[in-house]
Formats: sequence, C-alpha cells, structure tokens
Amino acid sequence: MAEQFSALFGSIADVGRTGSGGYRRFAWTGEDRLLREWFTGEAVARGAEVVPDRAGNLWAWWGDPDTEPGVVLGSHLDSVPDGGAYDGPLGIVSSLLAVEAAGPLARPVAVACFADEEGARFGTACAGSRLLTGALDPSQALALKDADGITMAEARSDRPDKDPEALARIGCFVELHVEQGRALEVPVGLATEIWPHGRWRFDLEGQANHAGTTRLVDRDDPVLAFASMVLAARRHAEQLGLLATFGRLQVSPNAVNAVPGLVRAWLDARAPTEDLLLQLLERLGGDPTQESWTSAVRFDLELADRLSDCLSAVPRLPTGAGHDAGVLQEHGIPTAMLFVRNPTGISHAPEEHADLDDCLAGVAALTTVVQELAG
Amino acid sequence: MAEQFSALFGSIADVGRTGSGGYRRFAWTGEDRLLREWFTGEAVARGAEVVPDRAGNLWAWWGDPDTEPGVVLGSHLDSVPDGGAYDGPLGIVSSLLAVEAAGPLARPVAVACFADEEGARFGTACAGSRLLTGALDPSQALALKDADGITMAEARSDRPDKDPEALARIGCFVELHVEQGRALEVPVGLATEIWPHGRWRFDLEGQANHAGTTRLVDRDDPVLAFASMVLAARRHAEQLGLLATFGRLQVSPNAVNAVPGLVRAWLDARAPTEDLLLQLLERLGGDPTQESWTSAVRFDLELADRLSDCLSAVPRLPTGAGHDAGVLQEHGIPTAMLFVRNPTGISHAPEEHADLDDCLAGVAALTTVVQELAG
Repeated sequence: MAEQFSALFGSIADVGRTGSGGYRRFAWTGEDRLLREWFTGEAVARGAEVVPDRAGNLWAWWGDPDTEPGVVLGSHLDSVPDGGAYDGPLGIVSSLLAVEAAGPLARPVAVACFADEEGARFGTACAGSRLLTGALDPSQALALKDADGITMAEARSDRPDKDPEALARIGCFVELHVEQGRALEVPVGLATEIWPHGRWRFDLEGQANHAGTTRLVDRDDPVLAFASMVLAARRHAEQLGLLATFGRLQVSPNAVNAVPGLVRAWLDARAPTEDLLLQLLERLGGDPTQESWTSAVRFDLELADRLSDCLSAVPRLPTGAGHDAGVLQEHGIPTAMLFVRNPTGISHAPEEHADLDDCLAGVAALTTVVQELAG
Repeated sequence: MAEQFSALFGSIADVGRTGSGGYRRFAWTGEDRLLREWFTGEAVARGAEVVPDRAGNLWAWWGDPDTEPGVVLGSHLDSVPDGGAYDGPLGIVSSLLAVEAAGPLARPVAVACFADEEGARFGTACAGSRLLTGALDPSQALALKDADGITMAEARSDRPDKDPEALARIGCFVELHVEQGRALEVPVGLATEIWPHGRWRFDLEGQANHAGTTRLVDRDDPVLAFASMVLAARRHAEQLGLLATFGRLQVSPNAVNAVPGLVRAWLDARAPTEDLLLQLLERLGGDPTQESWTSAVRFDLELADRLSDCLSAVPRLPTGAGHDAGVLQEHGIPTAMLFVRNPTGISHAPEEHADLDDCLAGVAALTTVVQELAG
C-alpha cells in the first residue's frame, strides 16, 4: 500500500505548487479544475461513475445509491493561500484507496469531492457543502467577490443550488483529515465535536497623517489601538482557554510615510463553548462586525461508537477547525471524522506534514470502516 | 488675488480625486501627465518657456538662465495615496502667481515642477530632484517597481540622467509648502532644517499555522511580536523626543483562519539628531533592513536671513518632512523654504487644509521674495 499511496498522493504534488513549497489551489481556478479532472479520472479508473451535484461537488459512486442510501467517504482538494499538501487531498487519496482495498461491498459507496472547502478565494468556508444543504443561499454565494473583484458567478460556469436528491443518497459520511494541531499522539483518532467559532472584523479608525510632521500628541494612530488589542486578545485567550487569532489585516493608506487612517483587523476565535466566545468579545470591546458564527457541532455518537468498535483503540478528540463533515452533521446526516496524526502540529502552511506510516494507518482504518459500514 | 488664487488652485481640483475627497496622483500616470500639461499651459500663458531637464522635471523660465543663474521657485504636483490638495500644488500655484504678481524682473526667474516627489509609486522619495543632482542612480531608479510590478523604465518614456547644465542655471531655490504639523501659529514661516530620517523594514518571522487547531503554546505568531514592537516604539519615541511610525504592513498569508508566518513592518523615524535615531533603533533591537537614510539638511543661513529681512516677522522652524528643497540644498545650491500654516496639522490625508487668507499671505510673501532676489 505504501507504493500505491505515494504514487497517488504524489501524482498531484506539482499542481498549484508555490515557490515556498506550499500550495495555492483556490476554488474555480485552473488548478482546481485540473484537480477535479484528476479526481474524476482516478475514480473512473477504479470503476466509479462520477456525477456532480447541483451545488458543484463531485460524487464518485460505486453501486446505485437510488436503491438505498450509501456510505460516503471524502474530503476536498482546494487549499488556503500557501497551504500544505495534506489538508483535503489526504482524505481524497485515502478514500479512493480505501474503497479500492475494501473489495466488493454490499451497499453503494461513494467518495465525495467537496468544492471550495477552505473559502480562501471568496471568504466563505465550506461553500460547496453549505450550498448543497441549503445552509448557504446561492444568490448570496454568487455575489461574493475574490481579491480581484471577480464574483463567484463569474468564476464558475454553473448556477449552484441546494440538492435534496444528492443528500438523500447519503446514508452516512466519514471524512478522514490530517489533524491540524498536536492533539493526537497515536496515528489515528476520532473526532467528537467541532468547537463553536466565529469571525469578527474590527474597523479601527484613526486620522491619516504625515509620519514626518505630525507630533505624537497630535496623532490618532489606529496601529497603536490594534497593537493593544492583539496583546489583550492573547491574554484573554490564555485565561479563558480558547483560541484567538488576528490573521488578516488591511492598513490604509499603507504608506511608509503616513500615519494610517484605518486598520481593519479580522479576529478568528474558537472555544469549547459559545459562552466563552461571547466572553472574549465582551472583554475586547469595540464594535466589531460579526462576519460568521458557527455553533458547536457534535458528531453522531452511535456512528462514532461503531467506528471505535471496529478500530483498535482510537482516541477521541475535539477540534477547532470547520469541515464539510460538520456541515453534513448539522444537516442531520450521521457523520464521523478520522484524524491522522500531525507530528509538528503545523497546518495551513507549506511545512504541513504527516508521516507515511501514519497515512497508511489512516487508509487501513478507513478500509476497515467502509467494510464495516457497507460490507 | 483671492479670485486668481481660487481659480488657479481650483482648476486642478478634479484631477485624480478619490471617493474620499483625497487625491491619487502618482508619478508617470495619466493624472500626473495631465497635471504636467496643465502646468506647462499655465506657465506658457504667463510668458514662460517650459523645458524638461534630463531627469524629467519641468522648468518654466522667464528670461535667459544661460546668461546668469536665475531665481527658482517651485514644488511638485504628485501625491501620496489619498493625499491632500495642498502638499505640492500649493507651492506650484503660489509660485506661478508670485512670478506674475512680481512684474518685470532684472534676473532670470523660473518655476520648477519636480517629478515624483512623494515616491508613492516606486517607494523612492524626491526621485526627480535626486536624479537631477545625481544622488539617485538612473539605472537603480529605472529598475524600481510599483505595486503592479511595473518598472519605472516601463512607466516613463524617457531615459533620465543627471543634468549639470540644468543645475548650473539655478542661482538659488525657494520652495513654498503647506506646513504639515501644528508647528506654525502664524500664516507664514521659514524652515531652518530638515530632521535626519530613515526607513527600516522589520521582517518578523513566525510559523504560519491553522488558527483553529494550533494551541496557543505551540504558536509562533509574529503579530504578537509586531504588537509589542509598536507599543515599544511609541514609548521610546516619547522618551527620546522623536517621531516613529509603523505606517506600512504586509502580513503573510493574510488569511482570517491562519496564524501568519511573516509580518513585514516598515518603521519611519525622524529626530532632531542622527544620534537619537540610532538610539531608537538600538532600543527596538531585531535586525531591520535600512531602506533609506537621509542626514540632517540645514538650509542656507544667508538666504534665510535675507528672506527674514524682507518679510515681516516670520518665525523659523525645523521640519521632519523631506522635500526637493532639501535635495538641492544638499547639492550645494542656496535653498530656502517657506511654510504656510496648517490649522489642523493634518497632511497626507484628504482633510489636509490651509485657509485661503493664509494661502494669500504665502503668495504675497513669495512675491516679495522673488522681487528681493531677482528685482
């Protein structure tokens, strides 16, 4: 299996690769199209029929899901800017290999390839699965613009909509994913829940001015307010036991010789409970715009127990990251997630890594799971 | 004169105007070309002959400067991003009106319109005057790139070079400029010196990572280092009596859900002495790249005394801002600067303002000066 895994995983190693060794595979770009065509080809070569749903996701089906709902594996192929090789593709590659290794199965089985999971291009995560379930309104999605001002409507040729027929074909969903922190000390784990999380935009206004002539006492410099807020957010996050990140910034006019007039800063925060998130916001103050809010998602306990029973000693752990699996669980589909160990805890960066032995353990676990659920 | 001033100053009020009411007039753009054509037309209409020098600056001459060096007034027409209406154009408009009001003069007189003073497009301030004197190497300048990756060589059609012949025509230079802080409490003042200043780039490296899964203790978040440095710089600036500004930032990958891997921050610092600047850098630590260093410039004392004598009670003041006047003084040309009061202290922003009465006092002072020097 090591050779098979390396060959399949390695066959997309050059698609969207950046100078830093990371990946830029934004939804509905040439790189994304190439990856979707690669997925289609690999699935068809393994005997699947590949069909898109009305939301733009791809489904590789073995067996007829219109006779009875099937067992669906899968993940995504798009990336964040300068992302790693494993986030998404590890799940796709492992799913294709697991279905192949499982041999003939009694129930229909699919590998789903979700579109635009990262939301890196249009700012809305899990767009493909959320369009599918109706959690994201199509007209709202199509109006989203990327950094070049191109709308999603312009970027994609189809007109997405929710797709109850495609959803009805899913008996249960299992997503395998590289773990994204250092929470897993064995090769494979099982997710219990996704922490609630939200995004807030702070518009810190000051007075743009000349950096060489404006006395310190006359300044209203929003960079100072931002700096204080960053340090406060870290302190509160430590005290409250949550995650808070200022990862995106816009400075205006952003000239070396000008005191900025505006700093726009985006806070990403995730916590074990929604109450803790609200406490953080209250402590930070200001009047931020809430750009997204995702409640806690608890994965199907019965399905998790069944996976635990057929796999040997997999630890259970929560995660702070959103996934298409969370969207499907929210929609009422019994869903589970398997995590593969991340030795350095780095994700969303070129250094993202999983050891080959752990990846193979992931494929083996997924093979056992699909045999258990569809055998 | 109020009507004449308002008409001439108002005739370019719409060129390069942004939605915020500010101006974007970058060097070698369509806006810049239009302004230079406007300058040429207004000067020719007042009887001047307009010629470019080899560095790309424009010279409107009355009389023949090859018989004896002339008295040169002038400033610039380009702007910072979203800059104000006065920084540059006030000097050009006042100079044209002063030469007109002065009447026939014994010596040759010129109004110079310097190219690319702000350096907003290619990152190098006073490019036109520094190319003229040879302080800026032409091949180095032509290789500079703007934010779109366009080189200065591509942006301008000429091949600039230093121009000793054009310099030899300058007997002395007087630039009128809006004051850019709140240092002036009367309508008109006289500059004594330009503070030494420099620009340094700090590359704060961390480890890019997933904002939703990386534990706080596992993070190496350069935004925290940046925040601490901003607050430290302000504290040191207050203690040392200097100006320190972080006005430009680049965050990578700059995604809401990613701990950044790199924060690039530019420090602009200016102080009464070079020693104070070096103290600031030492206190901040790190290993910044010095992108520019400009020593203190002291304007010609004899010329300043002569201006003081013919003008009634003008206070003298230093400034932290660089100007073409500083470049010419550095080159050994006797140079002076007149400042017009800035009631709010705002500059390099749409709110930049000077009262009409103060502008008229500036034109009157400049008229007296040109009569004194060239009469």
